Amino acid sequence: VSLITFTTDFGTRDWFVGTMKGVALGINARATIVDITHEIPSGDIRAGAFALAGSFQFFPTGTVHMAVVDPGVGSERKAIVVRTKSEFFVGPDNGVLSWALARTPAIAIHSVENPRYFLNPISRTFHGRDIFSPVAAHLSRGVAIHKFGPRVKHIEHLPWPKAEIKAHRVMGEVVYVDRFGNAITNIEAESVAAANQIKGKVFLRGKLLCSIASFYGSVRKGLPVAVFGSSGFLEIAVNGGNAARQFRIKAGASVAVKYR
Amino acid sequence: VSLITFTTDFGTRDWFVGTMKGVALGINARATIVDITHEIPSGDIRAGAFALAGSFQFFPTGTVHMAVVDPGVGSERKAIVVRTKSEFFVGPDNGVLSWALARTPAIAIHSVENPRYFLNPISRTFHGRDIFSPVAAHLSRGVAIHKFGPRVKHIEHLPWPKAEIKAHRVMGEVVYVDRFGNAITNIEAESVAAANQIKGKVFLRGKLLCSIASFYGSVRKGLPVAVFGSSGFLEIAVNGGNAARQFRIKAGASVAVKYR
Amino acid sequence: VSLITFTTDFGTRDWFVGTMKGVALGINARATIVDITHEIPSGDIRAGAFALAGSFQFFPTGTVHMAVVDPGVGSERKAIVVRTKSEFFVGPDNGVLSWALARTPAIAIHSVENPRYFLNPISRTFHGRDIFSPVAAHLSRGVAIHKFGPRVKHIEHLPWPKAEIKAHRVMGEVVYVDRFGNAITNIEAESVAAANQIKGKVFLRGKLLCSIASFYGSVRKGLPVAVFGSSGFLEIAVNGGNAARQFRIKAGASVAVKYR
Repeated sequence: VSLITFTTDFGTRDWFVGTMKGVALGINARATIVDITHEIPSGDIRAGAFALAGSFQFFPTGTVHMAVVDPGVGSERKAIVVRTKSEFFVGPDNGVLSWALARTPAIAIHSVENPRYFLNPISRTFHGRDIFSPVAAHLSRGVAIHKFGPRVKHIEHLPWPKAEIKAHRVMGEVVYVDRFGNAITNIEAESVAAANQIKGKVFLRGKLLCSIASFYGSVRKGLPVAVFGSSGFLEIAVNGGNAARQFRIKAGASVAVKYR
Repeated sequence: VSLITFTTDFGTRDWFVGTMKGVALGINARATIVDITHEIPSGDIRAGAFALAGSFQFFPTGTVHMAVVDPGVGSERKAIVVRTKSEFFVGPDNGVLSWALARTPAIAIHSVENPRYFLNPISRTFHGRDIFSPVAAHLSRGVAIHKFGPRVKHIEHLPWPKAEIKAHRVMGEVVYVDRFGNAITNIEAESVAAANQIKGKVFLRGKLLCSIASFYGSVRKGLPVAVFGSSGFLEIAVNGGNAARQFRIKAGASVAVKYR
Repeated sequence: VSLITFTTDFGTRDWFVGTMKGVALGINARATIVDITHEIPSGDIRAGAFALAGSFQFFPTGTVHMAVVDPGVGSERKAIVVRTKSEFFVGPDNGVLSWALARTPAIAIHSVENPRYFLNPISRTFHGRDIFSPVAAHLSRGVAIHKFGPRVKHIEHLPWPKAEIKAHRVMGEVVYVDRFGNAITNIEAESVAAANQIKGKVFLRGKLLCSIASFYGSVRKGLPVAVFGSSGFLEIAVNGGNAARQFRIKAGASVAVKYR
């Protein structure tokens, strides 16, 4: 397998992503490139980190995951390449890789410095095309990660807003709103005992909103419901509707689960 | 060939489609996956059925078409796999496959029940990733369709709003509005005798709108025109403009063709 | 390599692009198809020409670039195929290829007329699927360009708004606004002596706006800055913001660089 994924905020309206693919395929013509998304809100490192952390584990061993949400492009921030047990990550050292690495520990981290693996010349504004994409392509061909630059000990980590587990309740918050308007929280299925997962009541900003259920369709159309979703986290949804719009939910909104 | 197509309402903003591809490529690394669209309006089974029915016939023999517009995910609706003369279809049994199957008859239909071909564990909200994508990938590797589950006799069919053919006129309606604002009707080219196709007058909601022509550019910019479009149906367009916006056309609007 | 790129205004909401890929893969199952973009504003030949001219050079030798922004589809405009030193181009003869060909000269241009290489039957409204995509796929399999039709001497050229280079200043204009709101001008890095590139002052519609810098982050958040961007042209940006919205910049807005 020679699989590369792209997670960026470049959008698909312009030619940016296309040129990144051209560069990568010029280096590894046999690579298969999969877009995770290019619709990360511009410069939103947390959203990029969450998208990557929710998807990398569904790819086969050896996949190279490139994540470029890089508001500091051109400044002094480092570029890094990371090897874990099953995959590789490439991106700017600004935390965008850190939530994925919280789920699978880094075995080795190297700084990306060797211009031999870059496009020549490199631009000052588009390292996705000129540095990250060619590095990902070389990785997918089997170039060892120490070739890209010296070992790095410390990298940037985004703080993860950990849910608080108390007696009979879990206190958390919304971390991501998806395109359906589902509000994904930081409350993991494991934090609520299985028996209580279907008896739990869900509070949004301190007010009772709904119960936990097994699937969206378990309530009538237009009503709110909370389910442990495909990402493993509790999600607030509206059956056939848009919970974020209906209840004005944004990332950061407090959510609690209470049960007996 | 090991070709899989995806037609869904998952959008491309989040990581959902990317993870479906990761799962499929983990099962069949040599698959080529083509996105038909992921922008079906959320839960709009008819739009998904129309998109699939308008595209499957342009793919080579043996292609596996996966269509997931699945508002009932997690409920009791069945998942099905279908073999036709030239291709395979996979999706929920809610009618989303039925307009394609009206164009190419099913040779065998099986229920998808064998968890051996699913992701493990499966989530309650994302069967696209956990069931349909792995089943499509196994199909693309040549797994016989009876392996997925028992034979099924009856599946859900969406009613197709058939145009009424009368003397000197055809009465139909708009079935799909595309991103250009072209209003695609259910009036097929074959329902209007060739000789009359260029003499026909087109009525929208009972009022004369325009004539039928061979191509959009045959009227002046800003004027409406009707052509038998690439899908084989009569489309109402505005040369250089957006007919749906200009004439407030939605799916269901009545359209008639009259001729001598 | 058997690489094909697509640049169109078909959008990704409907099934149009998917069917073009099905047709191409039916002809060349081993082709890799890369989307440059399908979000060219409907019928905007200049935007399509700019996207193609900014991306083709990042693809490996032998790539076939298909660009279909084709408001005259169905009318008398020709379809052409072009061979250059390193790649092939296919598209309507309406100028959409001309800015790319200004950067790499055409070695041979042929009219696309031989229906043997088309879908059969062809529609009157979707030559992207019925003519351009199959021709691109045949090209990617090595079909010689003279097979598609007779040699053509003259093709349509879009006028390029060349920047005026004067003593101590360069007078240009905005030619493209990207999805970040960066306003890309026609002022090339080479037109401003290297030493002056960081001393230049940038005027928008005659008024001093900002200085030239090396990267977006060199000014405080919310402030405008101009950089020679990844396309080789001067771009007006706002650090962490949207310059086009903030300063109401559209294609055509005058921009000047002045220096000592």
